[in-house]
Amino acid sequence: MSRQGSKLWGGRFVGDTDPIMERFNASIAYDQRMWDADIRGSKAYVKALEKAKLVTTVEMNQILQGMDQVCDEWSKGVFVIKPGDEDIHTANERRLKELIGAAAGKLHTGRSRNDQVVTDMRIWLRDAISTLTENALQLVSTMVERAAAEIDVLFPGYTHMQRAQPIRWSHWILSHAVALSRDVDRLNEIRKRVNVLPLGSGAIAGTPLEIDRELLQKVEFLFWASLCLTHLSKMAEDLMLYSTKEFSFITLSDAYSTGSSLMPQKKNADSLELIRSKAGRVFGRCAGFMMTLKGLPSTYNKDLQEDKEAMFDCYDTVHAVLQVTTGVMSTLKINQSVMEAALSPDMLATDLAYYLVRKGVPFREAHGISGKAVFAAESKNVALNQLTVEDLSVISPLFESDVSSVWNYRSSVEQYSAAGGTAKSSVTAQIEHLRNWVKKQAQ
Amino acid sequence: MSRQGSKLWGGRFVGDTDPIMERFNASIAYDQRMWDADIRGSKAYVKALEKAKLVTTVEMNQILQGMDQVCDEWSKGVFVIKPGDEDIHTANERRLKELIGAAAGKLHTGRSRNDQVVTDMRIWLRDAISTLTENALQLVSTMVERAAAEIDVLFPGYTHMQRAQPIRWSHWILSHAVALSRDVDRLNEIRKRVNVLPLGSGAIAGTPLEIDRELLQKVEFLFWASLCLTHLSKMAEDLMLYSTKEFSFITLSDAYSTGSSLMPQKKNADSLELIRSKAGRVFGRCAGFMMTLKGLPSTYNKDLQEDKEAMFDCYDTVHAVLQVTTGVMSTLKINQSVMEAALSPDMLATDLAYYLVRKGVPFREAHGISGKAVFAAESKNVALNQLTVEDLSVISPLFESDVSSVWNYRSSVEQYSAAGGTAKSSVTAQIEHLRNWVKKQAQ
Amino acid sequence: MSRQGSKLWGGRFVGDTDPIMERFNASIAYDQRMWDADIRGSKAYVKALEKAKLVTTVEMNQILQGMDQVCDEWSKGVFVIKPGDEDIHTANERRLKELIGAAAGKLHTGRSRNDQVVTDMRIWLRDAISTLTENALQLVSTMVERAAAEIDVLFPGYTHMQRAQPIRWSHWILSHAVALSRDVDRLNEIRKRVNVLPLGSGAIAGTPLEIDRELLQKVEFLFWASLCLTHLSKMAEDLMLYSTKEFSFITLSDAYSTGSSLMPQKKNADSLELIRSKAGRVFGRCAGFMMTLKGLPSTYNKDLQEDKEAMFDCYDTVHAVLQVTTGVMSTLKINQSVMEAALSPDMLATDLAYYLVRKGVPFREAHGISGKAVFAAESKNVALNQLTVEDLSVISPLFESDVSSVWNYRSSVEQYSAAGGTAKSSVTAQIEHLRNWVKKQAQ
Amino acid sequence: MSRQGSKLWGGRFVGDTDPIMERFNASIAYDQRMWDADIRGSKAYVKALEKAKLVTTVEMNQILQGMDQVCDEWSKGVFVIKPGDEDIHTANERRLKELIGAAAGKLHTGRSRNDQVVTDMRIWLRDAISTLTENALQLVSTMVERAAAEIDVLFPGYTHMQRAQPIRWSHWILSHAVALSRDVDRLNEIRKRVNVLPLGSGAIAGTPLEIDRELLQKVEFLFWASLCLTHLSKMAEDLMLYSTKEFSFITLSDAYSTGSSLMPQKKNADSLELIRSKAGRVFGRCAGFMMTLKGLPSTYNKDLQEDKEAMFDCYDTVHAVLQVTTGVMSTLKINQSVMEAALSPDMLATDLAYYLVRKGVPFREAHGISGKAVFAAESKNVALNQLTVEDLSVISPLFESDVSSVWNYRSSVEQYSAAGGTAKSSVTAQIEHLRNWVKKQAQ
Repeated sequence: MSRQGSKLWGGRFVGDTDPIMERFNASIAYDQRMWDADIRGSKAYVKALEKAKLVTTVEMNQILQGMDQVCDEWSKGVFVIKPGDEDIHTANERRLKELIGAAAGKLHTGRSRNDQVVTDMRIWLRDAISTLTENALQLVSTMVERAAAEIDVLFPGYTHMQRAQPIRWSHWILSHAVALSRDVDRLNEIRKRVNVLPLGSGAIAGTPLEIDRELLQKVEFLFWASLCLTHLSKMAEDLMLYSTKEFSFITLSDAYSTGSSLMPQKKNADSLELIRSKAGRVFGRCAGFMMTLKGLPSTYNKDLQEDKEAMFDCYDTVHAVLQVTTGVMSTLKINQSVMEAALSPDMLATDLAYYLVRKGVPFREAHGISGKAVFAAESKNVALNQLTVEDLSVISPLFESDVSSVWNYRSSVEQYSAAGGTAKSSVTAQIEHLRNWVKKQAQ
Repeated sequence: MSRQGSKLWGGRFVGDTDPIMERFNASIAYDQRMWDADIRGSKAYVKALEKAKLVTTVEMNQILQGMDQVCDEWSKGVFVIKPGDEDIHTANERRLKELIGAAAGKLHTGRSRNDQVVTDMRIWLRDAISTLTENALQLVSTMVERAAAEIDVLFPGYTHMQRAQPIRWSHWILSHAVALSRDVDRLNEIRKRVNVLPLGSGAIAGTPLEIDRELLQKVEFLFWASLCLTHLSKMAEDLMLYSTKEFSFITLSDAYSTGSSLMPQKKNADSLELIRSKAGRVFGRCAGFMMTLKGLPSTYNKDLQEDKEAMFDCYDTVHAVLQVTTGVMSTLKINQSVMEAALSPDMLATDLAYYLVRKGVPFREAHGISGKAVFAAESKNVALNQLTVEDLSVISPLFESDVSSVWNYRSSVEQYSAAGGTAKSSVTAQIEHLRNWVKKQAQ
Repeated sequence: MSRQGSKLWGGRFVGDTDPIMERFNASIAYDQRMWDADIRGSKAYVKALEKAKLVTTVEMNQILQGMDQVCDEWSKGVFVIKPGDEDIHTANERRLKELIGAAAGKLHTGRSRNDQVVTDMRIWLRDAISTLTENALQLVSTMVERAAAEIDVLFPGYTHMQRAQPIRWSHWILSHAVALSRDVDRLNEIRKRVNVLPLGSGAIAGTPLEIDRELLQKVEFLFWASLCLTHLSKMAEDLMLYSTKEFSFITLSDAYSTGSSLMPQKKNADSLELIRSKAGRVFGRCAGFMMTLKGLPSTYNKDLQEDKEAMFDCYDTVHAVLQVTTGVMSTLKINQSVMEAALSPDMLATDLAYYLVRKGVPFREAHGISGKAVFAAESKNVALNQLTVEDLSVISPLFESDVSSVWNYRSSVEQYSAAGGTAKSSVTAQIEHLRNWVKKQAQ
Repeated sequence: MSRQGSKLWGGRFVGDTDPIMERFNASIAYDQRMWDADIRGSKAYVKALEKAKLVTTVEMNQILQGMDQVCDEWSKGVFVIKPGDEDIHTANERRLKELIGAAAGKLHTGRSRNDQVVTDMRIWLRDAISTLTENALQLVSTMVERAAAEIDVLFPGYTHMQRAQPIRWSHWILSHAVALSRDVDRLNEIRKRVNVLPLGSGAIAGTPLEIDRELLQKVEFLFWASLCLTHLSKMAEDLMLYSTKEFSFITLSDAYSTGSSLMPQKKNADSLELIRSKAGRVFGRCAGFMMTLKGLPSTYNKDLQEDKEAMFDCYDTVHAVLQVTTGVMSTLKINQSVMEAALSPDMLATDLAYYLVRKGVPFREAHGISGKAVFAAESKNVALNQLTVEDLSVISPLFESDVSSVWNYRSSVEQYSAAGGTAKSSVTAQIEHLRNWVKKQAQ
């Protein structure tokens, strides 16, 4: 009798097993969501065993039928987790043995628990990536269609949170849609790597080389989630600014706002705040897992069990955020008149400089002259476009009456007709490009 | 009818409310664990309202009795969460209203939802800190008693993972116990700050000033948890090394080990690996919440809702880790003969240098001479203490026959009799100090 | 001849030493800034050695004078770092030996390099904390005096970036000053712990127990810096919002703004953006060092060398941020008329509810009635205070002509006269409290 | 005169400009290392301007010659940074103007400072990626050749830091070489994205859409660095274990070890500890920059200035780590006899189970029987292979005299001949695969 569990110097519990250690060690509470992946993985594995003549066809069929029954129990919500089922793999194997007896034991020939976990996670991750891709495509699509419908709306482009130059509202939308499309591209790259079967797979002998490879894919997914939500945190920040009373560019749908328990007049953009907040949560999971990995000896260590909760939480979070963002973007209303009223002639100061550049002035000098005009307008307390040609010609003799052509916001945005520019043709091209991209992804 | 929820550009759902947004916004799934804190908080609050004559004594009693009934339902596990109960506060208030009618509405006079959340979290945190303090004290106590019982066991002290100098096994134990005692001291400081009532508290008008103060305490707690588990990750790493076949200094109890599904001979120190891994998890939560806070406008933003899951997860994790570590430390067995056999004469090279220092040689020079002796022994392929006086006197004429007194591990550790040293008296003093400290904490 | 450096399988360099390894290992490039701390530490140490009769008085004086000369060379910028000076400690010791000869070797009796590093860092950290405390006090002081001078300015208090209730501008200032004062309090706690001498200090035998203790203080400092800059990132975010064209509450001094190289009209709040950005930088240092610590075996490992650059960078960053923030806060101009024009009657909806509470309506019900009034005003497209008593009495018969008293922003803020409230008396009390606190700190 | 810089409420400095703000804002201290990239970028840009007829051929040639002269000054170390040169771009432009006069002003037509920074960083990053790829290839190559040379050396494979199964030393080496090869693959993907010219590039009008795209590449690089060093931290941890006295599998070259200032006998694996530590440093940079990005409004904000120091530090760190690791791997010596002596018969318990599987026993049952054999050997205090056939047949009648064939470490490793396995043929194939891969990369 080993009695090794008995305590020597005080301590907390009496007896041979420590229930807290058991719970600490068990993952069934969170990994049961992989029941389906585990069953699919085992069914594929037993077929490989049969091919390798390590189980007979009869045994294979027994196992397959037993697994279908286990699947059925989970689907119907009647699968009963028992004490000792420390993870989903043990639970399914235990149940299979109850159903088909000794043959169940053959399912694990040449397959370590780690091999099985790796396979199940890969199946789960493949599904997860598919769903997130769909979510992201729906969001991109919603944004692109909105951009198409509202292409004629101008408003201020900001840098440093200060009004910079007039742009199209669609230009803003598309800048975030493009960022999202790149996130999808990156997710596709991860998907490709997940789909590559591990070196030793199909074969009987697993290989410890693969553990780090799998780790990498997980870490990449966690980082992808962080990057994607960091983008969305920036987009949410923009929208929050636009929905303040002071900006008043947009009004969120009630479905994505909440009131205050104290202040009856409040309508808060909770959805946007939640979106913004999740970048931290998800990056925290990524940071935590990276820290757990740091300095670990190679191959398997129990520390790696931390991967699953991190993966599940990041998936659930991104899944919800993408859907809520789609809801927000498909229902918010813009206040076009306020947006356009926010344009002011000083936002055309760069255009004023280019007016001079076209007359041969080096840009740096033209920039300086335009700056003087801005200062002159401020001193006179008038708008920049209210300076007379006389006022302007004091600053530079090159200013002539045709300077009046500068003071037009629509002409201003039309100047930038290169790819990615603000001209209607550029924005339309971008819309078409993204529509085609979405179609291609969906295939 | 506003119909603001209706989608304009595609999107996912039809109708006025978005179920995903509702779930995204709701916290009842995780904050219901604060049901008790919420009830205690409300009971205290209604008493303050009565004192301020904002509710009558009759109303107060109605509310108190209603709250007791709600408490009873939670205790018995019969409280039913209904759709619309977005958080524990709403749920309890809704139930109170069902039980006592209109008077329930008076409970929230001058109290915003945020005030209520803050109070509940403080009550919860106070309890959490108490429990963790107890857990940590039990661990310290277990370690101290083990150190007392095994004070005569010597083994190598390591720096850079290389054998450095002989120390007592108890010295190693106590170094970690002391680190833990400082963690408890720090937790006490947080407890003191949590116990200070907020400025406006008791009064009717809450004050937004307090939101940042509360945040700070949460952040401090998350960081405390990270620091505490980082310590324990280092202790776990030491123990893992000691439990490798190659070191063989300790044997973990079966209750804290697990086998391999593939390799029948394996016995893995899973408990230690789990302890080591959790530092990452908890720091990830802290990092995530810090990132969520970064750049937020002041006062309340919905982003702050991220605090609760982080707090609960960190608490649960530290709670489990401290208990499992106590279990590990109270049941592991040491292999004294292996530990002592790991001491080797070269670990006394510093003592050899001090032998020369006592004869007037400057330390740097003595260090150099001792290094030459080490090299001479290596060249001759003998242990350092097997160099003859003749061998040594070639290196320095100051070596005489009394050099033999250096080659004694027990004498070596006895040299360091200052506070914190390795002498038996120092270690005993440290044990007494910590025993007293534990007693004082427990009061 | 050992020739161990010679490469066996290709590799990069030829010969016995690898210059990249040398640079990798060396810390002189960044730790030379501790030259003063190192000299002060050594001078104190040699005095302890003399007391312990481990050096003679003559030797002590030689060493002290030598050290003064080294100090002089650093002060005058003529100290020459030589190849082989891998850190500041080696450099100073090498120079001392050149100056005074063999006696220099006695300085290191019983002191390991690690002991010396620990002592130097403690001296440096003590100075650093003093300077940062002064910086923070100057900022608090600037803010308090500004709050005192501008106490009569009202503007909207925001939650969720939406206008919530009228508050004093001073109230906003003080909320951040109070947060800073708590940061100073926390820094004081760290200072106290740094000032406690290590257990074995003064004695000859250092103790490895202390390494973790020192680590803890460093980690605490890094976290303190993160927390402090996270506060300031939030304050900067508020100020950035207030300085947008759309809010126009404040105008930054030119000294803390910059223009655009492209857009002549731009004036960007670069100082605020830099302040906001530094929270990330500093927390990254903290996160990085925590990750480095995770899972390290206890006692000294070379990994710990990462502490210094992290400490120096965090110190330099906080030092600059506090000073720049002081500059910003002491020179920005407020636009009082815009701030007050941003107040609107719907921000008094809570006051309208309290009007009903004073007439006996339970708060939840009063909140609902007030909400209906807000909705009625929106429907009629009038301001909330433009609803007639008749309009209001349709919603609740309790509304009477005295409801007009509600529509006064100054009365509204005066209601909250508890500690931390918005009443002039409360704000004044807070100012006095902080003034006294600053005075006390400065002592 | 605006005098806006003058302080209103105390504060620190007197006058119109704040020197600390200037230093805070300036990046010349660290971005001057991009002098070459900046010159190359400007030279390409002026050629585009000439094509677009925005400068004449004469002006272009003036600018090109001027830039060559600036380049020359930097190369010779005689370029003088002047006050007001806030970044490398300003410095080069200022110098160009001094050299060629007014024409210099034309260089910036249609190019904002941000455009310029983006281009310079892309050029720098392209170079950085090239260098790191070379460094990594040299390391992989060194490892592969070592693996080829030492292919016959067996030693224990570990999981959970416990001896698991016999493997080839080359198998361990290659597992890390493969991880590194994947890091190179990923770096290649980033390189491809960096090489794609931005949408608006070549054209005159830059586009704010591109800022997020550039950000993404930087963030990806920082994360790549974190991932790569996390791998190397794990490899370093393995090597550190192997170099402990207790394992004694390897001996580091003196060139990558250091001694102790206190303990003459110590030889510490400092190089490995430094390698292990850098994962934290680099991930801290990545985490810090992610935190800085979180919640930023889109387009350019000064916060983004944090990117450069993070990029430079990560590059420098990975650059050094890869080279030092190459040095370590090309000079360490293995202790083959110790490695092979560490193999023990219980590590063949899995093979014993497979012996039974080959006789038709389901794996789970065979695993149980083998476990009983391990227990029987422990009880008798003999090695597993010293159990007699009689001893074994008590446990299972299927054990026969041919069981003796199991007790052979070389046969054991030869069993795993699938891709990635431990058989000599598999390892050789992996070596060939990697050799070819390296060749292909180098093209």
